[in-house]
Amino acid sequence: MKEYDVIVLGGGPAGGAVAAPLADAGRRVAMIEADAFGGVCPLRGCNPKKVLLAGAEAAHMAGSMLGTGLTGSMAIDWSALMRFTRSFVDPVPERARAAYADKGIDTFLGRAAFVDPHVVEVQDNRLTAKVICVCVGLEPSPLPVPGAEAMPVSDDFLSMESLPRRALFIGGGFIAFELAHIAHHAGSEVTLLNRSDRVLRRFDPMLADDLIRASRDIGIDVRLDAPVRSVERIGEGWRVRAGNNVPIDFDADMAFNCTGRRPAIDRLNLDAAGVEFGPLGIAVNNRMQSVSNPHVYAVGDVADQGAALTPVATIQGQTAVANILNPSSATVNYSGIPSVCFTLPPLAGVGLLEEEARERGLSFTVRETDLSAAFSWKRLNQSYARARVLIDESGDRILGAHILGHNAEEMINLFALAIRNEIPLSRLRDTVWAYPTCGYQVKYMV
Amino acid sequence: MKEYDVIVLGGGPAGGAVAAPLADAGRRVAMIEADAFGGVCPLRGCNPKKVLLAGAEAAHMAGSMLGTGLTGSMAIDWSALMRFTRSFVDPVPERARAAYADKGIDTFLGRAAFVDPHVVEVQDNRLTAKVICVCVGLEPSPLPVPGAEAMPVSDDFLSMESLPRRALFIGGGFIAFELAHIAHHAGSEVTLLNRSDRVLRRFDPMLADDLIRASRDIGIDVRLDAPVRSVERIGEGWRVRAGNNVPIDFDADMAFNCTGRRPAIDRLNLDAAGVEFGPLGIAVNNRMQSVSNPHVYAVGDVADQGAALTPVATIQGQTAVANILNPSSATVNYSGIPSVCFTLPPLAGVGLLEEEARERGLSFTVRETDLSAAFSWKRLNQSYARARVLIDESGDRILGAHILGHNAEEMINLFALAIRNEIPLSRLRDTVWAYPTCGYQVKYMV
Repeated sequence: MKEYDVIVLGGGPAGGAVAAPLADAGRRVAMIEADAFGGVCPLRGCNPKKVLLAGAEAAHMAGSMLGTGLTGSMAIDWSALMRFTRSFVDPVPERARAAYADKGIDTFLGRAAFVDPHVVEVQDNRLTAKVICVCVGLEPSPLPVPGAEAMPVSDDFLSMESLPRRALFIGGGFIAFELAHIAHHAGSEVTLLNRSDRVLRRFDPMLADDLIRASRDIGIDVRLDAPVRSVERIGEGWRVRAGNNVPIDFDADMAFNCTGRRPAIDRLNLDAAGVEFGPLGIAVNNRMQSVSNPHVYAVGDVADQGAALTPVATIQGQTAVANILNPSSATVNYSGIPSVCFTLPPLAGVGLLEEEARERGLSFTVRETDLSAAFSWKRLNQSYARARVLIDESGDRILGAHILGHNAEEMINLFALAIRNEIPLSRLRDTVWAYPTCGYQVKYMV
Repeated sequence: MKEYDVIVLGGGPAGGAVAAPLADAGRRVAMIEADAFGGVCPLRGCNPKKVLLAGAEAAHMAGSMLGTGLTGSMAIDWSALMRFTRSFVDPVPERARAAYADKGIDTFLGRAAFVDPHVVEVQDNRLTAKVICVCVGLEPSPLPVPGAEAMPVSDDFLSMESLPRRALFIGGGFIAFELAHIAHHAGSEVTLLNRSDRVLRRFDPMLADDLIRASRDIGIDVRLDAPVRSVERIGEGWRVRAGNNVPIDFDADMAFNCTGRRPAIDRLNLDAAGVEFGPLGIAVNNRMQSVSNPHVYAVGDVADQGAALTPVATIQGQTAVANILNPSSATVNYSGIPSVCFTLPPLAGVGLLEEEARERGLSFTVRETDLSAAFSWKRLNQSYARARVLIDESGDRILGAHILGHNAEEMINLFALAIRNEIPLSRLRDTVWAYPTCGYQVKYMV
């Protein structure tokens, strides 16, 4: 039985945020990864999707200016774009594993399971440690309807060799929307089926509605109130039956289940370690310790707190490391964490939604700005751009900021900086922004 | 003789920043504009250039991805792009004048000149006021070589009907570089002649050198140490002789003098008002008052302090207004003012240059980041991207930030916010940036 100071289950961004600094601090660390070192973000998430989106962005920008100064046409060459994407993805697992090995971390490839609170089994090895940190992330949730068991998911989209003529996405979260936009700009006929009339629940509902309109404008068939009833393989394609009263059949060459992701904990045997968990993942306190076994930590998407975002995994990991090195020394600060739906245009938000601010009984005003009428969006001939900023009753504090439009993903960082660091609005108003930039518009947004 | 509380000379952004709030505060205000209300920024500067650049940006982005996922070709249709540009520019003068009239401001179109310290003449009118504010901006400096008297300048470029096959730009400042990039991406063969071996003096020299390389890579013929000796009209074109020892003749269909701009004060008869001025403009104190006549203010590019940037005119105007309403109540804070050279890629900076920090005897370190190796630039297949951040000896304060690369113009706003508001580096490090965005990279830049 090999002995360590800390065993980390999971070799993604969360696992890395824990294992690397602990090894740097001289701790003996083992890391066990079930699939491929690197994790979802660089392999099947943020990074490949944003490389695929690069083609769409360029095509979208050029397309927006047709008739106002540009001629010609651009098209996405899916095979070339996928080759380019693989040039980012493929080297990651070996490079990540080598980097951990360089730090003296023992890496194991295989499924881990708890044997008892301090012992973990992987392949034929048994490892033991004083502290075990679970960073195994999420996996796609199955769609609970007949025929959906073998449906492709986002992982399949992000590595598919050829573009389907007709692509169908089930779900109304950021994954469904992002992939739908990539597929559309790459040339697919795209349908998106959402169960209810509300999509992108983490984002401002009014801006989400704008994004639905923007998506429909470019030809994406967004169907609301269209819960899926059944899925059927028809020849090489898929037939998806969806709708409330009179379901309709949607035929597509490829159909993707993007309805959600769940904690990848089924085979960890958490009970053997006395680790409590629920549908959102492992129950943790604000020091990232299991509420039922303080020697077990959970970090990243598998923990039942914090949004499932790579930067959240990073700060949770930093907190766990601080507490492992110095017990009870740190808690996670979740304020001012931005999130982005990388569509075209992108939709971004940070801080409170209007609904959340109301639930907390806060008094606030909403400053809405039609960015599509502002110079930096008009010059790019952008139709959909709008910002909504929540300001507290003192008039000097931002509670939330929500932006749809070109460069929203960069502008949201300004608000993330301001909200997390409690920078008063008067300081934002006094800031001198470069002109003409999108950021300059902040002047008129607050 | 008409009497006012304040006469404002100049109807650009500086004049507007003074006249509008004074009128709102109930003061009787006259505004005299020699050319067209709106000023250089919306009519012959920032705005038209950024509309023209929109075409170039889209073409550049699409072009960068050829071979890595995009096929096809885009070209700029100069006439259509110019029509689109005019749709921004043309309505400005009437709209601006009407907006001032709505505020009760009397507007006069014509050249103004001082008659005495409190009297100004325009056309056949004599106006008098307790306070006179000069906001007349800059005009192109003539190039002091034979034949250059009638040379086109940036104003001509920004309104030209057709694109020259060969375009030549004299100068190494941001105007020369921006127009050279626009012309190149629109399809001209472009030459840029700079007197010395140092261009873009307001920006980080190492990044300016990168920009020279990036410009040459795309085919712009950047010539350094090439002072212009003479300019000659040859048929419909231009011949420019330039160089140090053995001057060379450069032939072009259009040649533009972009060597600099000087205060537009020659015909103001400033002596009659006892207003001192020098080559940089009207000598002012930090309350924006003439050092020799406290009843005269100067705001914007015509003042001999502050960079010639629209946002600087705005804050100077706010300061002048505060002091006009409440004597000696405000001074200008010039810290953290960003500036951008809108090339492709853009070059941006805020705070101190290395040279300036050294001159002030400061101890500091420079953190350099090769952004071209970072995900958000690699995914767009960008070759030139780099950041240099100056950090003071405490390790917790940013003295300056300089960025070359895609989205530099937006990222610089994050540093502008931080520098002007003295946000410690530790707060920037603790900020959670959206991933993957360019702003996320700040984490690794500080």
